[in-house]
Amino acid sequence: MTELLKQIQFIQEIDKIKYIFRKTKLINSNRPENDAEHSWHLAMMAIILAEYANEPIDVLKVLKMVLIHDIVEIDSGDVFMYDTVKSHDNFDEELRAAKRIFGILPQKQAEELISLWVEFEEMKTPESKFARALDRLEPLLQNVSNNGGTWREFNVGYQQVMEKKRLIQDGSEKIWAFAENLINESVKKGILKDK
Amino acid sequence: MTELLKQIQFIQEIDKIKYIFRKTKLINSNRPENDAEHSWHLAMMAIILAEYANEPIDVLKVLKMVLIHDIVEIDSGDVFMYDTVKSHDNFDEELRAAKRIFGILPQKQAEELISLWVEFEEMKTPESKFARALDRLEPLLQNVSNNGGTWREFNVGYQQVMEKKRLIQDGSEKIWAFAENLINESVKKGILKDK
Repeated sequence: MTELLKQIQFIQEIDKIKYIFRKTKLINSNRPENDAEHSWHLAMMAIILAEYANEPIDVLKVLKMVLIHDIVEIDSGDVFMYDTVKSHDNFDEELRAAKRIFGILPQKQAEELISLWVEFEEMKTPESKFARALDRLEPLLQNVSNNGGTWREFNVGYQQVMEKKRLIQDGSEKIWAFAENLINESVKKGILKDK
Repeated sequence: MTELLKQIQFIQEIDKIKYIFRKTKLINSNRPENDAEHSWHLAMMAIILAEYANEPIDVLKVLKMVLIHDIVEIDSGDVFMYDTVKSHDNFDEELRAAKRIFGILPQKQAEELISLWVEFEEMKTPESKFARALDRLEPLLQNVSNNGGTWREFNVGYQQVMEKKRLIQDGSEKIWAFAENLINESVKKGILKDK
């Protein structure tokens, strides 16, 4: 098969993330968000909020990361942020998925995307820290717009939210200041339990 | 309002493109695609197919263009590619939408995104030619996967398809060779009328 045909096959395969639904709902909505919509929104946030990263970042790299970060869920499914059973310890399963799906591409491209995906997961570089911060910020905006959203639905309290959201700080102190304030305001408004 | 609050307001506003549905359906599916999914898919195609652009391109610029290109449809709605009444002559309406929606952002950012959107529409630069080629390629892949899809549904024939798709060539000769072949094969398979 020519390289282009492999690439077209990959482009067709990843259409499947449009059927992978997250627990969080769209802004002011009851409709769950799918992974393609979520990834698009993170990419827009990366473009708009890049100036607030703690360290200088390569925006193109951040965009690639957020655009591909959930493609593995075609095979491994979405894990809810506050799931205490699966608890996001499914790295091996997701890595297998990354290898299968990105492996459809010509080898050099496959290697680049698998490596970007691992970088996002490991969260050691400025780009991956910033990308992960955005990944935590979006559901926060959604839950606040939905009167508590999945916090209310799954009985999640202030401590758990703070625990999960604090990593925003590693990507951006400024976005974290905004997010922390939003979480505290949510408790005051009674849409997040202070248990 | 601080700059960050304007940016957050913009990020919330653009959530609405998840409700703007296109005529084309997902791959092997009956479910219409929305603009967020479509924009995500074009961004992935830009990353994967950049090497085939006729001229050297700034991939970051292409990504920004395809990610934002349909945001105007929040106000002006989607126009079907083969619509002969509205016929995509709604540039003024779309420009008003661009000014309102991108205008939520801090001024410098608003200007950058409006200008990128105009550049995409005008299709004079290497980046916009390539971005527009991808915008034409995606529904082609979708229609082929759906036994003719919107061609069949709206009685669109070979000449009309060739007329619309030929601009792929301005962005990428190599992708056009693939696309032209796919269109010809579609006639042979009987999923596109040669009228």
